[in-house]
Amino acid sequence: MYLKEKTIESEIVFKGRIITVRNDKAVLEDGTVVGRELVVHSGGVCIVPVTEDGEIIMVRQFRYPFGEPLIEIPAGKLETGEDPREAGLRELKEETGAAAKNFEYLGVTYPSVAYLSEKIHMYLATGLEFSKQSLDDDEFLDIMKFKFGDVIKMIETGEIKDGKTMTAVLLAARRYGI
Amino acid sequence: MYLKEKTIESEIVFKGRIITVRNDKAVLEDGTVVGRELVVHSGGVCIVPVTEDGEIIMVRQFRYPFGEPLIEIPAGKLETGEDPREAGLRELKEETGAAAKNFEYLGVTYPSVAYLSEKIHMYLATGLEFSKQSLDDDEFLDIMKFKFGDVIKMIETGEIKDGKTMTAVLLAARRYGI
Repeated sequence: MYLKEKTIESEIVFKGRIITVRNDKAVLEDGTVVGRELVVHSGGVCIVPVTEDGEIIMVRQFRYPFGEPLIEIPAGKLETGEDPREAGLRELKEETGAAAKNFEYLGVTYPSVAYLSEKIHMYLATGLEFSKQSLDDDEFLDIMKFKFGDVIKMIETGEIKDGKTMTAVLLAARRYGI
Repeated sequence: MYLKEKTIESEIVFKGRIITVRNDKAVLEDGTVVGRELVVHSGGVCIVPVTEDGEIIMVRQFRYPFGEPLIEIPAGKLETGEDPREAGLRELKEETGAAAKNFEYLGVTYPSVAYLSEKIHMYLATGLEFSKQSLDDDEFLDIMKFKFGDVIKMIETGEIKDGKTMTAVLLAARRYGI
């Protein structure tokens, strides 16, 4: 049987620009006291942008935790209080220069549920109109286009490893029957 | 164009049981210095266990970051240096009591690539033989069984939100043609 947990102690051990880290104690319903490490993150959005030719617009950027570039769908961090849909449209525009006529919700995914509060909202963008990228100062990325079916293959063969990309593209593929 | 990053300063700001948190500085190829917050995690495994009747064995447990129970596939943390396949078989046994005759690799997923080093290895387990659960002291969970197609529906409707579960089940569905 699963047991509810109630916070009885909470200590902020790190407060950064992106994450806040807490070292908590919680009591279970049966009285057991357990330590709980928690990474607090404001959440994010990611977008599967599909062109009229059935291609997905992707980005490739260096990812510090892995020391190598990864291929991902466009994505970004939610500003505090920001509406996920607005954030999705903003990030799509900033990273790829695209505005989307249709912006369909694919759902939410929790990337690492044991200790991370991050929630990522996923969208499917079609009816794209392109203008100029406008990246953040510390953001450098390549824009790439792949056929939808090729992205699925890259997920199945392990060339794409980013979790949000895998989840959102596989969900979008089911909607499209791909 | 994406730019490589090189660590020039690294400070451990928290060392817990599950995560180590670093507050680093990195220099980009163009000379720009940027702050990089990093959560170091030893990685994990998750398993899609499918019975002869085409049901997936799932677990429901309280998840502290969300203050509610979540439905997930069996999973666990890699011990340092542990082989992912061994860890997968161990976690499957501990959480569900099942041994698997067939244990097929589905690939790896990186749950939150901007600041988290965690990698989760995914497996598909069939030919299951059941004995007793043997959970950790602070681990309490419900075992649940759902038809494969119903798990897909729960992912599509948002009843299942756990990232590794979404990715691994959607990948397994493609292999089975479900």
